[in-house]
Order: sequence, then structure tokens, then C-alpha cells
Amino acid sequence: MKGNLLLRNVLLEGCSCDIYIKDGTISRIGSALQCGDGIQVLDGRGMSVLPAFVNMHTHAGMTLFRGICEDMPLKAWLDAVWKAETALDDDLVYWGTRLACLEMIRTGTVAFNDMYWRIDRAAQAVEDSGMRAQLTYCFLDGGDPDKQRLQKEECEAMYAESRSWSSRVRFGVSIHAHYTVSDDNMLWAADFARSRGLLLHTHLSETRTENEAHQARYGVSPTRRLADMGLLGRDLTAAHTLWLSDEDVRLLGDSGTTVVHNVNSNLKLASGWRFRYNELRDAGANVTMGTDGAGSSNNLDLREALKTAALAQKAWREDPAALPLDELLAMGTVNGARALGLNSGKVEEGALADLILVDTASPFFVPAHNFKANFIYSANSSCIDTLICGGRILMQGGRVEGQEEILARAREETERFLRKINA
Amino acid sequence: MKGNLLLRNVLLEGCSCDIYIKDGTISRIGSALQCGDGIQVLDGRGMSVLPAFVNMHTHAGMTLFRGICEDMPLKAWLDAVWKAETALDDDLVYWGTRLACLEMIRTGTVAFNDMYWRIDRAAQAVEDSGMRAQLTYCFLDGGDPDKQRLQKEECEAMYAESRSWSSRVRFGVSIHAHYTVSDDNMLWAADFARSRGLLLHTHLSETRTENEAHQARYGVSPTRRLADMGLLGRDLTAAHTLWLSDEDVRLLGDSGTTVVHNVNSNLKLASGWRFRYNELRDAGANVTMGTDGAGSSNNLDLREALKTAALAQKAWREDPAALPLDELLAMGTVNGARALGLNSGKVEEGALADLILVDTASPFFVPAHNFKANFIYSANSSCIDTLICGGRILMQGGRVEGQEEILARAREETERFLRKINA
Repeated sequence: MKGNLLLRNVLLEGCSCDIYIKDGTISRIGSALQCGDGIQVLDGRGMSVLPAFVNMHTHAGMTLFRGICEDMPLKAWLDAVWKAETALDDDLVYWGTRLACLEMIRTGTVAFNDMYWRIDRAAQAVEDSGMRAQLTYCFLDGGDPDKQRLQKEECEAMYAESRSWSSRVRFGVSIHAHYTVSDDNMLWAADFARSRGLLLHTHLSETRTENEAHQARYGVSPTRRLADMGLLGRDLTAAHTLWLSDEDVRLLGDSGTTVVHNVNSNLKLASGWRFRYNELRDAGANVTMGTDGAGSSNNLDLREALKTAALAQKAWREDPAALPLDELLAMGTVNGARALGLNSGKVEEGALADLILVDTASPFFVPAHNFKANFIYSANSSCIDTLICGGRILMQGGRVEGQEEILARAREETERFLRKINA
Repeated sequence: MKGNLLLRNVLLEGCSCDIYIKDGTISRIGSALQCGDGIQVLDGRGMSVLPAFVNMHTHAGMTLFRGICEDMPLKAWLDAVWKAETALDDDLVYWGTRLACLEMIRTGTVAFNDMYWRIDRAAQAVEDSGMRAQLTYCFLDGGDPDKQRLQKEECEAMYAESRSWSSRVRFGVSIHAHYTVSDDNMLWAADFARSRGLLLHTHLSETRTENEAHQARYGVSPTRRLADMGLLGRDLTAAHTLWLSDEDVRLLGDSGTTVVHNVNSNLKLASGWRFRYNELRDAGANVTMGTDGAGSSNNLDLREALKTAALAQKAWREDPAALPLDELLAMGTVNGARALGLNSGKVEEGALADLILVDTASPFFVPAHNFKANFIYSANSSCIDTLICGGRILMQGGRVEGQEEILARAREETERFLRKINA
């Protein structure tokens, strides 16, 4: 019975239809579909169906640090976050990730690409939440030879352990950033991942300072050096990619690298706002959307981030027609799914049934001249009534099973964390 | 009984207290307050109290055009809106304004400063909604002598009619913009308003094009010319003020003019993003927040607009400490109230009881390191549970009386509008 579901009378691109989900996949889309006995039926009258979101760059466990340092210069922010992270332990990561998953489910995200610590605990949290995720073992050695060796061992051990994870949770490899990982380990990590068919994840050109320091040290841009090291490619997801030259854009495009726009984090930390969406798209990069961690961007609400991305893009390009709605929604759904190797992010027969139902009963959806504009520009994410992952209902009527326990435990863990860092 | 209410156990700046409201005004803030029999009591346990928002620039009736033209160049957008507005009639303005009021109440706004057509019908809608508003008769003559004369007569007649409005709804005068109103009528309108103690409202320096055309024609900036005509002052609210020279900032500051930041509209229509918040504040201008009409910014959600304003400010100033939370909240509350002559926008004994209660039960408020950051940066406006205007509850538990009828009528009126313009 798992992953079998009939959605009755949902609106798809404005037309009422039924969607029959079998074994987690959209089996048929039509009208007045018949299904066997015992199939769960969800009456979606008045609801619009959309593919659920894919958040392509976040640090889920960091959600326990939401709001810990506000209106601060970047240096003070980093000091506060790094101090907080010294206190991380298994339970903090588990409950921080459960809290993150709860928030993502409530705001319409079905899958995410994560970069954080203690990923075995994060994996358990994702398993328990019912979502999908790629959790990446993160290399960050600062050039320390002991750490270099240790992290290779840890990565191998964690990968071995990951073989027991379900198909919803995948192991990947992160190179934290070109300026925090030794060249040796960057190459080792890439080879480790590629020889096993795993995906890579890194931060790239997030700040102007980072780019300038790199240029001064190596005489080339970070993207150029990654290209020279053979790291770019369809199996690499590069987050931020905010300070790119024309050559950088071409390199990312030619290699088919996935880039992630983390607009709220970029604006809030004052990293920049001129994300080169048009150029990256035209060059052939796979352009996706992320929220970054709640430590910097305060929430994991991808729909809200899409709105901000479009507003920023229209403004800095001085073109109100920039980043139109269909491309924007693709950034938040099918492009991310493609990067993670998921056949989802679309409402089509044969695709994974990773869907949301949008309740249009609120004033934000009146009048109904343009549903997608109402969804992105007018509404807030409380309009997302139902989230379905592979045919399993993870939220319905805005209710997620176990929400109260997750919130209570996250609050308790936060208290314990505060006692720990203030001890 | 009207305007008398006891709020029990609400959180004010993190401390639990009771708030006793008498005749629409906050009479006492304390603990375990006693009140007479028959006073309505609202148990606010788990809720945080904040002043309700004041939206200082909108076109409420335009809400029926939400989403009518998306991802279009500015010229096409204006053509579509102007075509739509030729169809306006009394019922469209009434139900459009009711819809706008419903949305504002649901997102925590208690009062707004409006510029639109058929303000007698808008006034009735505001009366019926229970909110406060200043509705401005709008001069827009394009230099046409017949319109000049007609608008003066209409303004006088509408002002006479406004004497029957309740104290919640005030009459004001708009000069649409320096480039759409003849000098004669600008001066006449200002004199009409000032000789009667009414407030003025205008668009100012919204686009670069507007500024350049003005400079070419008059040899000075729009602000300089308004100053020379004697129009600036504490009784003027200037919306947008996006393209300001240092001298413009000084003129607005010295005169104590109220300026309104309409960030979502500015970004979406690609008007610009470098709103000079710090400079205007330091010069002595009264800096407030607005949403503009839903035709351009798609919603009237002031809390969301505050978030975007802070993000944009931090980004373009390259300073993550720019526009800190307390100043941001003041822009959205007390500064706007001051401009409208309302003793509100603060939770203090003696102030008007224009309040919201924020429900912190959702994941967006966990952990609770910083309530204001969670409210602005993490949550969406569905966290606003209760809105109180002068001690009267306009929303509780997210429910507004008459919501279903308003939505149904707004949908019907939209159908009628579409038939009208497509006839």
C-alpha cells in the first residue's frame, strides 16, 4: 500500500483532474480515474497541484542557530556560528535536522542537498521525516595534515555506513570550499566520489573578498582553478556562484555544472545580489535554488526564496521581464531534481509523485488572473496544504505527524546547547 | 462596551503581562489586572503582542488587478493597468477595497494611506472593515484645463461628503505626481489641504527616467522643485523617493517630510533598489513603509515588505548590520502612525490599542533566540493570529468576520470587470 494514492479533482495547470500514484510514481493523470479497493483517496477539490520544491543548498542541522546573531558584521556572525558549532553533538544534529525537515515539509520542499556535520545522525532524521535528501560528508581541513588523513578515513567509514540508508537518503561528498580544503584532499574527495558514482557539492565564489584573495594568491579565479583541477562537471553542485567573470560563466556552462542561487543568505550577509542568472542559463549551467542554512537566511522556505530571487533579478538587471515565472518555478523544482538524479520536479506520468497541493481559499489567490503569480508573489507558504513524497502524505491540512514532539525536543535541545556553550 | 478589552498573559518584549484597553486606548499594562464585569477577555497565552502595521502607500482598490500583467516591460504593464482602470466603477472600488482590507487585516496592518479613485466607495469599504485609513482625493490632470477645473470641484464635494465619515477614516489630498498634475493644481491642492489641516500625499522620484526627464525640462530635481513650490513639509507623504541626490535628501530631511519605501514594487517593476534609508533617517525625514498597490507588488503584506527592505538595504550598502530590527519595525509601525497623526504604533499606556498578537507555535519560531528576527526573517504572516483596532478585535485565530462573503463578491466583481473590459 505504501506509495499508492489517488488524488481526486485537483487542478493541474487550471484543469481539474485525478492523479493516480502507484508505488511512489505518477501512474496516470486523467478524469474520473478508477482504482482498486483499499487505495487511499485524497479529495483535492479547490487545490492546485504543483511539483514539490528541491532545496539545493542548505545546512539543515544549523536550524538550531536560527536568530543567534542578527544585524552583525560578517566577521562577528562567523565567530558566533563557529563558536556555536563547537558545541555540536549527535542529538543537536538529529533534532536540528528534524526541525529543518519539519519546516521544509511545511513550506513545500520534498528533497534537499545538505552540507553539515555528523551526517549519520542527519540521515536518521531524514529517514524519520519521510523526505528525500542528499547528505554530503564535508571535507574541511584548513591544510592541517592530521585532519586531511582523518577526514579521508571518516569519509570512507561514513560511506560504508551509508550503504544501509534507504533509497530516499543518498550519500554525497562536499568540498567545503576551495579556500578551506587542501588541494590534495580536494582531488582525493573528487576521485572518491566519482569512482563510486557519488555527487559532489561545494561553496564557490560566495563573496568578493574570497574571489580577490584567490586571484591574488593564484592569479586566476576560483572557478578557473577548479576547472583546471578537473572538478567542474555535471556531478558537481556549486553553491552561491555570485562573483563570476564571463570566463567563469562559460566554464560552468560548458561543464554542465549545477549552480545554486541562495538569494536570501546573499542579501542578508551582504555578500552581493548580481547573480548572473541569464548568463548561466544561456551558457548551459543547471541553475537551481537553495535557502542556505537558517543560521544565515533564517528560514528554509524555498517558495519565499524564489520570490526574492525574481525581485532581485528584475531589479539589478533593470528589466521587469527578467526571470519569468515558469523559469523561476523550474529553478525551484525540476532543475534541482535533475541535479540530484531524481525523476521528479514535474507533474507527469512516470515521474516520482513528489507533489504539493496549494489551497487557494485565502485572499492572496483572489482574483485568480494568474495562479503562478499568486502563488509566488502574493501568497505566503501557509497556502501549501499537502506535501506528498513518493506517494506518501507527509503533510495534509497543514498538519505534519509528530510536529509537537519535534518542536518540544528542538526547544529542549536548544536549552541544552545554550548551557553547553555558556558553561 | 465598544473598544473595551482585557488581553490576558500576552508576551510583551518577552515578559508576560495583561493589557487593559478602555475606550479604544491602552489604559493599563501590568500583571493580574482586574477589570469590571462584562469586559471581554482574550486569553493571549503563548502569543506575543506587537503594534499593528501602518501601510503608508497603497492603492487598495487596485487589488482586483493583482496578477493581471506579469513579467512584462514597464510600458506594457502601465498600458494594461490603465486599460483596466478605465473599467472602474463604484462596485469594483468597493469590493476591491474590501478585499484589500481583508488581506491587510490578515497580515497585521491596522491603518493605511491610500491613493485611488472613487474614495467615497473606498471610505465605505474601510468603515465596513473596521480598519483605519486616510483616503486621498487624487489630482491627476495631465495639464488638461477641463480636468483641472473638474477635479477642484470634485475635491471640494468629496471633502464636504467626508465630514460624515467616522473618526477611523480620514480625508486627505493626493497630488498624483509632479509630472501628471499642472503646477496650478498642485498649488491649489496643497493650499486646499493645508488651509483645512488635511494631509498631502504624492509619488516622488520613483524611476530614473522620471528624474532625468524632470532635470532636462526644469534644470533641477523633482524634490528641489517641490521644495521651491513650498510643497515639502511634515504634512506631506512622498512615496518611493528612490532616486534622490544628496541635496534632495537634505531638503526632505530639513522639511521633516514623510517618505515611504515601497521595496517590493520598486524591485518588481525594476525601478531601482538603492533606497537611501540611512541618509534620509539621519537628515531628519520620517521614513516609513508601504506595499504600493497589489497591481505592482502583488500583495499588501507589510511584514513581508519589511523583510525585503532589510535584505535589500543590507545588500546594496554591503553591510549586514544595516537597517537593524528595531528601526525596521519602527518604519512599519510608529513612524507611519506619526505621519497620519495617530497616537499608535507602540504598546504603551495612553496609545491607541492597535495591536497584533503573534502565534509562536510554528517551527519558524523555534528556537526562540530572537523573537523579532523570527517574526521578520523566519516566519510568514500567517503567524499573525489576532488584529485589534482601537480595542475591537478584527481578526482572531486567523478568522475575519465576513471573509467568505468578501472573497465571493470580489470573485464575482472580477468576472464582471473582465466582461466589461473585453466587451
